[in-house]
Amino acid sequence: MASLTLTIAIDGLMREIETLARITEGEPPVVTRTVFSEADLRARHYVKDLCHAAGLTIREDAIGNTFIRWQGSDPDLAPVATGSHIDAIPNAGAYDGVVGVLGGLEAIRALQRVGFQPRRSIELVIFTSEEPTRFGIGCLGSRMMGGVLTPEQALKLRDKEGRSLEQLRAEAGFAGNLDSVPLPAGYFHAFVELHIEQGPLLEREGLDLGVVTHIAAPASLKVLIEGEGGHAGAMLMPDRHDALAAGAELILALESAAKSTGAIDTVATVGVCEVFPGAVNSVPSRVRLETDIRDTDSARRDSVLEKLKSAAAEVSARRGVRISFETVNADPPATCDAAVLQAIEEAALASDKSCQRMVSRAYHDSLFAARLAPVAMIFIPCRGGVSHRPDEYASPEWIESGVEVLARALARLAE
Amino acid sequence: MASLTLTIAIDGLMREIETLARITEGEPPVVTRTVFSEADLRARHYVKDLCHAAGLTIREDAIGNTFIRWQGSDPDLAPVATGSHIDAIPNAGAYDGVVGVLGGLEAIRALQRVGFQPRRSIELVIFTSEEPTRFGIGCLGSRMMGGVLTPEQALKLRDKEGRSLEQLRAEAGFAGNLDSVPLPAGYFHAFVELHIEQGPLLEREGLDLGVVTHIAAPASLKVLIEGEGGHAGAMLMPDRHDALAAGAELILALESAAKSTGAIDTVATVGVCEVFPGAVNSVPSRVRLETDIRDTDSARRDSVLEKLKSAAAEVSARRGVRISFETVNADPPATCDAAVLQAIEEAALASDKSCQRMVSRAYHDSLFAARLAPVAMIFIPCRGGVSHRPDEYASPEWIESGVEVLARALARLAE
Repeated sequence: MASLTLTIAIDGLMREIETLARITEGEPPVVTRTVFSEADLRARHYVKDLCHAAGLTIREDAIGNTFIRWQGSDPDLAPVATGSHIDAIPNAGAYDGVVGVLGGLEAIRALQRVGFQPRRSIELVIFTSEEPTRFGIGCLGSRMMGGVLTPEQALKLRDKEGRSLEQLRAEAGFAGNLDSVPLPAGYFHAFVELHIEQGPLLEREGLDLGVVTHIAAPASLKVLIEGEGGHAGAMLMPDRHDALAAGAELILALESAAKSTGAIDTVATVGVCEVFPGAVNSVPSRVRLETDIRDTDSARRDSVLEKLKSAAAEVSARRGVRISFETVNADPPATCDAAVLQAIEEAALASDKSCQRMVSRAYHDSLFAARLAPVAMIFIPCRGGVSHRPDEYASPEWIESGVEVLARALARLAE
Repeated sequence: MASLTLTIAIDGLMREIETLARITEGEPPVVTRTVFSEADLRARHYVKDLCHAAGLTIREDAIGNTFIRWQGSDPDLAPVATGSHIDAIPNAGAYDGVVGVLGGLEAIRALQRVGFQPRRSIELVIFTSEEPTRFGIGCLGSRMMGGVLTPEQALKLRDKEGRSLEQLRAEAGFAGNLDSVPLPAGYFHAFVELHIEQGPLLEREGLDLGVVTHIAAPASLKVLIEGEGGHAGAMLMPDRHDALAAGAELILALESAAKSTGAIDTVATVGVCEVFPGAVNSVPSRVRLETDIRDTDSARRDSVLEKLKSAAAEVSARRGVRISFETVNADPPATCDAAVLQAIEEAALASDKSCQRMVSRAYHDSLFAARLAPVAMIFIPCRGGVSHRPDEYASPEWIESGVEVLARALARLAE
């Protein structure tokens, strides 16, 4: 393929990103868009309007995954796809997910503007609920599309207010049969996701892009610690079975287990700690932790999990508290496809952008798209490695580079 | 004084305790009565009706402390007082506080029934908000009565919804000037509080009663830990400033500091741990702990506090998090009065009840009544040492013994 002379309409794209950021459940610059909330639906509407304006056709599946197609000259061939998500955790920023959706759209528009005609169709996918905010499970849409979460399992999902996924998707206008959501392997010819790094490496190294070779696998666990409550003044120290003190030991044991692998790719977090009864003058009787353990290597991740569990057994016996675990998910990591990686690296070269291979420590919809198709990801820098915060930031230059390379890679893969 | 032949109407008293327990914000047997809630006001009403039926006169001060008087033959003398509280923390039981209020009333009625005429008036006091549930500070009513919390400080109090004490007390019908709440030293000739032990010692030793010589002093601290948030997958372990991991270290440091004094009377608790943003896939950026440290010895308690603060300095430096402390209260312990103790012990002897001197590790309104008057407390056993739980329990026999000894002690002190 001869090199295309592409122009990214970066000013317009930045305005679109800013407009989308103002569709929020919070007060700007806080971005909060919980799946199926009024803000999520308005955001979907905004993006779909832009896609219609670009002459693209839209299909939505029963869970709300949205497939936006630029028809290829040979429409019977498996399409090349890109995409990401537009939902956002509470108190988040404007770029996570959004750069892959609006940037994906701009990649298509840039190719349209130079008169490029893809042989394979190119699809932009907006995945439902990449963030676990509402249902406690990440990548809901791509997970179902990839057949990893079955319709039967999805039917059991409830949000914190006890409302079912069934009810909430119906209220959001997605009423089809969930059995139609899983797609067959080979449905996509290739899948490329553009995303902010959510880490500090690219900015630190002064690189334009990262090319993701592996996506780390999250294991999410709920831990319930049941001790014995009582009056904070009257219950003597030797008589206590303090659920929070036991929880504190587990928090530190998990941190220590993650550090002990010696691998930079191992990370572990306790992000939720709920204490019952939660009064200053009551010894905690019950504590609920939610933990997140990730690695690019399943076996190494499982070793951290085992260390946590053996620490729990020791703490449980020593303190006389009961500790139980519930696995929310434990997905295998994904390895990106050599041909897709090469397409991206050739696109970077053609765009004169510096890039480096790296792993993704955050998980992404690509983890589940990998069940259907060869995948790879393009990372752009984000300031200070910060994400999931209102001050998350990616510069127009970084976004422009990412979109240009994405466009070239899609064009190459669609030929 | 010749020994009185007293009969405690224990069946009626137990029915009154049960009736009061059903006035709750929870579902019985859960007792929750937050100060100035509808349940608190109904409970006050119920007790005041019983007092009116016993021919007693009632005065309420501007914070809702309720003084119920049995007029003595020499009404100009300082009265002898007893009393406790009827508010209850969330998810509590039927006896904490209530035994001292309804038991105090039954002590007066038992003396009335045998035709006893006190020389000094006997007052039963219901203190407002002994529990810190609503305003975050314990013993609100007795603390103000004792002049330890000034009206100026009280004006600043807000509940979690931001409503002021001023607004809430006005809505509850207490509209007077707060300057009238503090009472002068010597206002009471003596103060005796009957209460469940909230510890296991009396039941374990098979004793009828405890006579409290010291009331442990609570120090309540709020601890704010500010670290750095970020994505749980992308933020590498060496780059983290995890506020919850820092908090876990403080929870364990406080436990260890309390144990290290070697004194059974030292207790320390972290009862509240709030995590921000509180999402499974976010590194905690901010944690708020509430801690409660108690001892019968101020210096020893302060040594625990110092150990916590030096641990915090070390953790703060090592982890790169900011840790700040806010002292909610740090009251000195109270020493009970020798003459009041003797009156109780003579009453126990006259009632043929076994008793033992002990310390109160829970704080009580007596801690602040001690600012005005010589005080002592009578403890009765509670099953398993359990309190602040729906299964809190004191048997009719235990309560009967406590009320009989209280009645004799009040009679003795009022002569």
